[in-house]
Amino acid sequence: MSNRREFLKASSLVAGISLIQPASAFSIINKSTAKGGLKLRFRAYTLQLKHAFTLSTSSRTTTPVVLTEIEHDGVIGYGEASMPPYLGESHETVLRFLKKVDLSRFDDPFQMEDILTYVDGIEEANKAAKASVDIALHDLVGKLMKRPWYQIWGFDASKTPNTSYTIGIDTPEVIRQKVKEAAPYEMLKVKLGRETDKQMIETIRAVTNKPICVDINQGWTDRQMALDMIHWLKEKGIVFIEQPMPKEKIDDHAWLTAHSPLPIMADEAVQRLDDVLKCHQVYSGINIKLMKSTGMREGHKMLVLAKSLNMKVMIGCMTETSCAVSAAAQLAPMADWADLDGNLLISNDVYSGMTVVKGKVTLNQLPGIGIKKA
Amino acid sequence: MSNRREFLKASSLVAGISLIQPASAFSIINKSTAKGGLKLRFRAYTLQLKHAFTLSTSSRTTTPVVLTEIEHDGVIGYGEASMPPYLGESHETVLRFLKKVDLSRFDDPFQMEDILTYVDGIEEANKAAKASVDIALHDLVGKLMKRPWYQIWGFDASKTPNTSYTIGIDTPEVIRQKVKEAAPYEMLKVKLGRETDKQMIETIRAVTNKPICVDINQGWTDRQMALDMIHWLKEKGIVFIEQPMPKEKIDDHAWLTAHSPLPIMADEAVQRLDDVLKCHQVYSGINIKLMKSTGMREGHKMLVLAKSLNMKVMIGCMTETSCAVSAAAQLAPMADWADLDGNLLISNDVYSGMTVVKGKVTLNQLPGIGIKKA
Repeated sequence: MSNRREFLKASSLVAGISLIQPASAFSIINKSTAKGGLKLRFRAYTLQLKHAFTLSTSSRTTTPVVLTEIEHDGVIGYGEASMPPYLGESHETVLRFLKKVDLSRFDDPFQMEDILTYVDGIEEANKAAKASVDIALHDLVGKLMKRPWYQIWGFDASKTPNTSYTIGIDTPEVIRQKVKEAAPYEMLKVKLGRETDKQMIETIRAVTNKPICVDINQGWTDRQMALDMIHWLKEKGIVFIEQPMPKEKIDDHAWLTAHSPLPIMADEAVQRLDDVLKCHQVYSGINIKLMKSTGMREGHKMLVLAKSLNMKVMIGCMTETSCAVSAAAQLAPMADWADLDGNLLISNDVYSGMTVVKGKVTLNQLPGIGIKKA
Repeated sequence: MSNRREFLKASSLVAGISLIQPASAFSIINKSTAKGGLKLRFRAYTLQLKHAFTLSTSSRTTTPVVLTEIEHDGVIGYGEASMPPYLGESHETVLRFLKKVDLSRFDDPFQMEDILTYVDGIEEANKAAKASVDIALHDLVGKLMKRPWYQIWGFDASKTPNTSYTIGIDTPEVIRQKVKEAAPYEMLKVKLGRETDKQMIETIRAVTNKPICVDINQGWTDRQMALDMIHWLKEKGIVFIEQPMPKEKIDDHAWLTAHSPLPIMADEAVQRLDDVLKCHQVYSGINIKLMKSTGMREGHKMLVLAKSLNMKVMIGCMTETSCAVSAAAQLAPMADWADLDGNLLISNDVYSGMTVVKGKVTLNQLPGIGIKKA
């Protein structure tokens, strides 16, 4: 019965029908009825973007997510998977993965290493799906300890950086308008990688002196051209450069990092813990995103490893509700930079959590990942 | 007044008088009287060893330690520094360091990263002194969260390894007696590095088939001789080799690790987080000891880093009370091996905490580092 309902839902998703389902549609998947075991629930949801999201290769107005809950002894932790299409996950793949996750075999949510090692071992890939379990488990365990994770990790909430706010590729007129809308933010992020790059920077610099970081999304191909451009960008008050060239160009990135007057940050080149050491002496630092790291536990390990290698760290996100963004924000006190604007870009958030106050990532004192239902 | 008392105490220690002081002799050092600030107290103590402790170069019957307490809102966390003489710290140096530590400037014990970064920055070295603050802070924060640290870190208490029990260098007759005394333990540790090494192993193997690990304490000098000996030791059921050659012999250790049929573990070669990467591809793994790592926080980071590099991990200790040993034991569920017999070797423990049950490191459910006053 439950299985048939799941099948129908998955089928409808395959057919491209995006469902905004009521909370009652949560699927409960427990392979056994063992008393006291953890209960995992999840449902598909579709985020509506305030502005179309434009990369150098695509544009879209929605992002599919899956909202998860893990319950233990009447306490519920919330999690989320976000699946921007270029990462290869979808409603269908995440729901299919989550149906395989049997948390009823675990009685103790504190055994996070065992639980998340089990979840990671179910299948390769499925990083966003895994993150949705990890985040819900962290929220649950934090609530059981009655503490937010930044406290459990021993971080100082006041040390969070400003978040950057992304200005998409657009006409000069629209860009000027977007910079005005970005008034509450103290750091701008600009997506470059087109012929009009210098014009775009000039357009922004004509209306604001705020620090800017640029994300190339692997758009540059020649390292000398990249270095020349970086020297030009440095003059324009740019703070750092994200993923300038295709991630396969390891030697070119190492050369660029060695010569660049600005930090070179890895994004596409870094997914999980294994990748951090590969980025050492190739990039100046890494962008940690929970949807790539499989969640907070591995994200925290990546932070520890990167810091121990004296690498810079930024905490990023996808288009997400306040759930996954607030989870990522728990790591922000240790980050050099944050790009946590994912929840600000949507019109149908389901939670409230971390906020941005005068541009700064601002953590609250709620336990777990620090969210409430909106 | 308080300062004068401290001066007299330090002077008496310089003069070699080891004091076993009552708890009332704790020194309270607070540079300000700020309400709500953390209170640090400490006192010198001398551990009495059940057996003289014999290395290839020395023998002794006592170990100086300093016992610390950090108090916040009526909750007290316990810590300890242990100073085996070959590491260069003493009652005098630890007390001198701790008198410089002003925790009254911190109101929130959860800001562990800031607090311990401050403590680490007061002076170079002084690793045991720093660990005594770190351990007391962990005990306090764990008590405030009402959870033991293995739970806060998400580890499964049932996954602790057996602890090894050290059989010192001695005559065959005494060795046979010591192996009998070691009946409750499932793993033996033997200190080698003398002409009589093979005879010692043969003596033990004549009376028990238990797994044995060997600690060379840098005692071998020739890598080919080391490899030949390791092949012989493998035939005798030895499990791993600790610090075979002087730590400066990096290339020789890398060669030995590449050729050895048994894991080669770094001990003298690894102190703090920075050393872990240096041991990568030189040793098979690392021995984490809180008195070298400056405590639990950096020890946990070393564990995360070593595991992310697919290195083996053992958790070791000095001669310590159940305080520092129980603190180290919180990491044990993630360790491949444990050498946590420090509290078993003394006759005047001050606390009870982790126990050894049928040879296995056994954690309790007490919050923090899991100890009570004995």
